[in-house]
Amino acid sequence: MGPQATAVCSLFFLLQVLAEPTENSDFYLAGDYLLGGLFSLHANVKGIVHLNYLQVPKCKEYEMKVLGYNLMQAMRFAVEEINNHSTLLPGVLLGYEMVDTCYVSNNVHPVLYYLAGEDYLLPIKDDYSHYVPRVVAVIGPDSSEAAMTVAHLLSLFLLPQIAYSAISDDLRDKLRFPAVLRTVLGADHHMEAIAQLMLRFRWNWIVLLVSGDDYGHDNSQLFRKHLAHHDICIAFQEVLPTPQPNQTVTPDERQRLAVIVQKLKQSTAHVVVIFSPDLALHNFFLEVLHQNLTGAVWIASESWALDPVLHNLAELRHTGTFLGIATQTVPIPGFNEFRLRRSQARQPAPNRTSEGATCNQECDTCLDTTMSYNTILTLSGDRTSYSVYSAVYAVAHALHSLLGCNQTACHKEVVYPWRLLEEIRKVNFTLLGHQIFFDKQGDLPVSLEIIQWQWDRSQIPFQSVAFYNPVLRQLRDTRHISWHTPGNTVSSGGAGGDGA
Amino acid sequence: MGPQATAVCSLFFLLQVLAEPTENSDFYLAGDYLLGGLFSLHANVKGIVHLNYLQVPKCKEYEMKVLGYNLMQAMRFAVEEINNHSTLLPGVLLGYEMVDTCYVSNNVHPVLYYLAGEDYLLPIKDDYSHYVPRVVAVIGPDSSEAAMTVAHLLSLFLLPQIAYSAISDDLRDKLRFPAVLRTVLGADHHMEAIAQLMLRFRWNWIVLLVSGDDYGHDNSQLFRKHLAHHDICIAFQEVLPTPQPNQTVTPDERQRLAVIVQKLKQSTAHVVVIFSPDLALHNFFLEVLHQNLTGAVWIASESWALDPVLHNLAELRHTGTFLGIATQTVPIPGFNEFRLRRSQARQPAPNRTSEGATCNQECDTCLDTTMSYNTILTLSGDRTSYSVYSAVYAVAHALHSLLGCNQTACHKEVVYPWRLLEEIRKVNFTLLGHQIFFDKQGDLPVSLEIIQWQWDRSQIPFQSVAFYNPVLRQLRDTRHISWHTPGNTVSSGGAGGDGA
Repeated sequence: MGPQATAVCSLFFLLQVLAEPTENSDFYLAGDYLLGGLFSLHANVKGIVHLNYLQVPKCKEYEMKVLGYNLMQAMRFAVEEINNHSTLLPGVLLGYEMVDTCYVSNNVHPVLYYLAGEDYLLPIKDDYSHYVPRVVAVIGPDSSEAAMTVAHLLSLFLLPQIAYSAISDDLRDKLRFPAVLRTVLGADHHMEAIAQLMLRFRWNWIVLLVSGDDYGHDNSQLFRKHLAHHDICIAFQEVLPTPQPNQTVTPDERQRLAVIVQKLKQSTAHVVVIFSPDLALHNFFLEVLHQNLTGAVWIASESWALDPVLHNLAELRHTGTFLGIATQTVPIPGFNEFRLRRSQARQPAPNRTSEGATCNQECDTCLDTTMSYNTILTLSGDRTSYSVYSAVYAVAHALHSLLGCNQTACHKEVVYPWRLLEEIRKVNFTLLGHQIFFDKQGDLPVSLEIIQWQWDRSQIPFQSVAFYNPVLRQLRDTRHISWHTPGNTVSSGGAGGDGA
Repeated sequence: MGPQATAVCSLFFLLQVLAEPTENSDFYLAGDYLLGGLFSLHANVKGIVHLNYLQVPKCKEYEMKVLGYNLMQAMRFAVEEINNHSTLLPGVLLGYEMVDTCYVSNNVHPVLYYLAGEDYLLPIKDDYSHYVPRVVAVIGPDSSEAAMTVAHLLSLFLLPQIAYSAISDDLRDKLRFPAVLRTVLGADHHMEAIAQLMLRFRWNWIVLLVSGDDYGHDNSQLFRKHLAHHDICIAFQEVLPTPQPNQTVTPDERQRLAVIVQKLKQSTAHVVVIFSPDLALHNFFLEVLHQNLTGAVWIASESWALDPVLHNLAELRHTGTFLGIATQTVPIPGFNEFRLRRSQARQPAPNRTSEGATCNQECDTCLDTTMSYNTILTLSGDRTSYSVYSAVYAVAHALHSLLGCNQTACHKEVVYPWRLLEEIRKVNFTLLGHQIFFDKQGDLPVSLEIIQWQWDRSQIPFQSVAFYNPVLRQLRDTRHISWHTPGNTVSSGGAGGDGA
């Protein structure tokens, strides 16, 4: 261990600033008020020794996440739309500062950066009520684990944080996380919707596969509680091996995957519910293909239900039927064009030097990769991207109130984050036909959908087949599922259980 | 919500500094190198809205924790012993800066304070390898939840953190928590020891009571896994209500407690294992006494096994036999006298002003309360206090190596925390007859004991009856348990289960 290559990040940043002053503008937009944006443009499951060197993790060494970049683009789109077209904040320029958090690896550093002032110093005070940090609010980060780490810090400052995809219901606890709001529905609803899907098709004998991290552990626990209420039994549960940072398969991992797939082939249960980040699933599904497993009904948690990289493995269609849970789609006009837009050439802010700046504000391959996945991204619909988009609008509406804006002007005052938080809690407005407001636990009650994976060119890749209403807590069909079974009959899901 | 009474803390601190300059020296000792010390001198379960005001929580508004103060005294004792008597760090003055964390309420603020420099500013850098924060290492905090919150922050700086009582084995994950070491045995060993106690007396039909927080949830999950390996069944499990901040019993809480105790009375299982912080148990045991429950075997997790306040409820002796799990006792010569020593009059350090200082460095009632519990504290033996004591010595030995000390002098160089961490990982020395070193996951393999509560004046309050060796993973009797049963025969633990 040691501070190897300690100067690399600073040097790199300095060179970037000197050589290509406009290249950072994807991540940074100057403004009267800045929003922080935390996204996973790269990712790795936690099995990497990123902290054994005393430096901020370098996200770009990990695998690129096309969905994470898509969400960052949604935030940029919302901010630019508010700045250019709306009368929401007349005369006010909203800015942003995005950082790549690479899943759970790089969250503390950007938060310290956001909390510091323009001098890159975070003063220690016993009262921050008149303190002005770099940003007035933070959008993200993506996973529940990362969102909670961030929330522990932001809570002390009552700096508003709006999570767009962290589903853990621990975040509803406003005693622990008073500054957290969410534009995504919590895990309890997700589990209820999946459980009702099981009931809908009388699947009472299922297999559970989970990742070895908090996500897999917490959600499978919660799901088991929902199942117990509905007399659904679990044939067996297995923990998927955590892949290596570089995704090469070790002999031990291959062995464990082989055993799991063999167990699946021998089981009388054919419905397989999987709670796992997408990264832990690539090698698993390669093994499924390798062993020619067929006839399964795969149920995807929201973490991988819309993953374009897994969907790209088109041979998976021969293994059975894929169903997944996802947040509802709300089309954002103009976003499909914006997604591929390279950022405008723009000078960095005058006071923006390499000194003290944060790393992980770069992604060379993001735009090209997004271009190659553009069709599926477009056809997937605006789902979590709408969650990000509405989070930005919630902040803008709160600023509108706080700055006493009318149609033509605002009072451009100093904004203290805790006062903005009060206003965000009170927002209630319509955005693209949907009502945006937060309940007492800070959640926006959005709807969920059950989607089915499709591969024919004439079909959309993630077809909505059922709809879950969080107020009624009810799932209802909207369309027939096309089953993998001969004659397209409903899969029985296998037999063997009598319910618990 | 609002920044009410925002200036109170600063003002109070300023007045203290002006009026009684020596009163803070319990919490602060100037030195060449400072250690941070995080202890719960006051505590409250998390059901308090401490974050609804934008200010650092004021710990002294909560209930005083005599055990927490005892641990802080152990740290002071170790530092003063090293400074006064040893040749460990010749010519070097070790200092400290203690903060009351009041359980999970006040952890982020002291860590930011520790990470900042002497100017009370934390600079945002992308490389901290040549950064010198206020402290070189942190001892604590107490609970696993708080220790993990702190660890997320300290990990970025590779600033060594030695936990003395946080048992969650998540802390063993050195990918997530590379800077955490522990002088306490992890939860897995605790559960194994309790499970072996069940086997020893053929108790295969038990009740589980757990607190509603992470501690109760995580440990009961883990314990269930250990039970499953041993064919021990759970008659029922109940979640204890979280008490109000002021410990007054609400009608709802009373109702829930009454139902739980009724269920216990009706159950055929008499062995009751309780995983809960002590604070959530006072009202429960009052209800046990109220309903005249008798004949139980209570099994205490380490969180309340040695609680002098609960033990003080002497009527509990009529409810059955109390057994608990605790870390081994290692007598620290001189500590019993030191425990009650008021701090020496000492001037605050010259550069120490109220500006930017941290709050929660006061406890008016600590010494008096400790005095009233002194007998039981003395008779309880040095257990977690030895864990704190050995943590301080581990840092001192690492400093000894890092500063190239010999018998008479050290090279007083700048100490970078990450370099100190490397040295702490390598320490291996004998302290009061026990070997101190850390395994690859940063744990010190100490032994556990099963203790029995006793109340007769001629007896010690927590009598060791069995001993658990973590290397052999084996529990062995050391002394007969005196049962509550007529004729002092082994409690059968009830009947009804056939094992799982």
